[in-house]
Amino acid sequence: GNAVTQDRFIVVGTGSTQLYQAALYALSPHDDSGPINVVSAAPYYSSYPLITDCLKSGLYRWGGDAKTYREEGPYIELVTSPNNPDGFLREPVVNSSKGKLIHDLAYYWPQYTPIASAADHDVMLFTASKSTGHAGMRIGWALVKDRETARKMTEYIELNTIGVSKDSQLRVAKVLKAVSDSCGNETAKSFFEHSYDAMYERWKLLKQAAKDTKRFTVPDFVSQRCNFFGKVFELQPAFAWFKCEEGIVDCEKFLREEKKILTKSGKHFGDDQSYVRISMLDRDTNFNIFLHRVSVSSNSTL
Amino acid sequence: GNAVTQDRFIVVGTGSTQLYQAALYALSPHDDSGPINVVSAAPYYSSYPLITDCLKSGLYRWGGDAKTYREEGPYIELVTSPNNPDGFLREPVVNSSKGKLIHDLAYYWPQYTPIASAADHDVMLFTASKSTGHAGMRIGWALVKDRETARKMTEYIELNTIGVSKDSQLRVAKVLKAVSDSCGNETAKSFFEHSYDAMYERWKLLKQAAKDTKRFTVPDFVSQRCNFFGKVFELQPAFAWFKCEEGIVDCEKFLREEKKILTKSGKHFGDDQSYVRISMLDRDTNFNIFLHRVSVSSNSTL
Repeated sequence: GNAVTQDRFIVVGTGSTQLYQAALYALSPHDDSGPINVVSAAPYYSSYPLITDCLKSGLYRWGGDAKTYREEGPYIELVTSPNNPDGFLREPVVNSSKGKLIHDLAYYWPQYTPIASAADHDVMLFTASKSTGHAGMRIGWALVKDRETARKMTEYIELNTIGVSKDSQLRVAKVLKAVSDSCGNETAKSFFEHSYDAMYERWKLLKQAAKDTKRFTVPDFVSQRCNFFGKVFELQPAFAWFKCEEGIVDCEKFLREEKKILTKSGKHFGDDQSYVRISMLDRDTNFNIFLHRVSVSSNSTL
Repeated sequence: GNAVTQDRFIVVGTGSTQLYQAALYALSPHDDSGPINVVSAAPYYSSYPLITDCLKSGLYRWGGDAKTYREEGPYIELVTSPNNPDGFLREPVVNSSKGKLIHDLAYYWPQYTPIASAADHDVMLFTASKSTGHAGMRIGWALVKDRETARKMTEYIELNTIGVSKDSQLRVAKVLKAVSDSCGNETAKSFFEHSYDAMYERWKLLKQAAKDTKRFTVPDFVSQRCNFFGKVFELQPAFAWFKCEEGIVDCEKFLREEKKILTKSGKHFGDDQSYVRISMLDRDTNFNIFLHRVSVSSNSTL
């Protein structure tokens, strides 16, 4: 398994986005000590600062890059592993005993990363969106050690949306059972094998294109042993953290204007404009057009 | 129809609870003027103050009973009509030109109230929960006049839950079509006729019990003409605003301890403890047990 479930509370939410807010509500002090800082090492998921600050909450506020965070007192550190947008495995970086941790494990599945061990953290967030691809169901789940934290997360969900769509909960249960059943089938590829193969093929093509053209780079990942598949492989993340080379300062602008490729600039993730985030999960035809456009040397587009 | 839809934007939400928060986000000033007061005439829906203040937002805060609200400057008034908990039809009560209005029309359906005219307000909230009974789908919809307000409501929903369950949206569309189709059927009762009859029967029994025992009262409603049914009738709300008589100060406690009936005290709705809110939408067996327990003079319970 990818996570320890023994003696954990399961909190179901309207996607892991709602569970992130539920965790902030549960882990923030509700006295008059003012908003607690929420930090994450850059590059971080671009929606996190927006979600955190959108209601100007007196309970919590975005505190920026965890790597440069130096304030005293309690804080919340968000650890996304594998990380969105760059795909690397992560650990907490703030060196303090006063932090509470939220682990966003949306991408901790064997199609994206070797499962070296079962994750074992206080608050772990998962989502159907990235595990099975059913983003439209808006279902996430949290594994939570502490009973009171789980209770307060549920309290937030009741206040925010009264509960979680029963239709979606029933459907996600069916989908997860089908995925689970596929893993015991000797005669056909499991869901995770199928997804692993698709991701492997795409990353092979993208890395080859980077090598051939030298006009961009993607991260180098180390290999690890995956206990689920019983083999060694490299991370093959859901997003490529794509860097324009040859002195291009604004990668997003370059790709948009010269290659007709729409991406999200590194600046939204607390990082440099020479980076963009590119989805590796689009349909085959779109992925192939993307590959062609970044590979050809002229400005011609399909 | 019960509402004007021409030239309105429709914003779908994870229940009208999320849409209420989306409307607060959209109607609050986002400059540094501090939180805007949100008011509603007591008795008001008990969740509204809790939802409004749960994150200590710097955008908005609960301002209490609209009937006693005297502050200068901008504010938001929430108008629930028919009202939860007491069932009366409502209009704004704050006498000022600086207010923005949110109309919660969850109960503005012909099984609960005569539809005297099509509602025509800036922001109108509806929900599947109270129209068809499908609370578990978590689907609400808002009819919004102003494009920018609708855009900001959608922005909030994207930040809060990225979107709304597609499974629930498809199902609610099917359910609403079936309800709509039932209205054109000459050979069978429509959904609304069926629901009207059920509510009529329950209110007749409850009013008779009040008259017989004299130990409690329920509100008196005037009759109005309903354009949907083409007949005159009284309001028959989803909740009974139930008042203990005979000098009972704490009605909730009395019903719980003496009658084994669990209710919600008037104090949660910004009103007196001699009142409680009672659901008129429970299953027949439960409703009949309730009727029996409030009717018998001894403390005996079924």
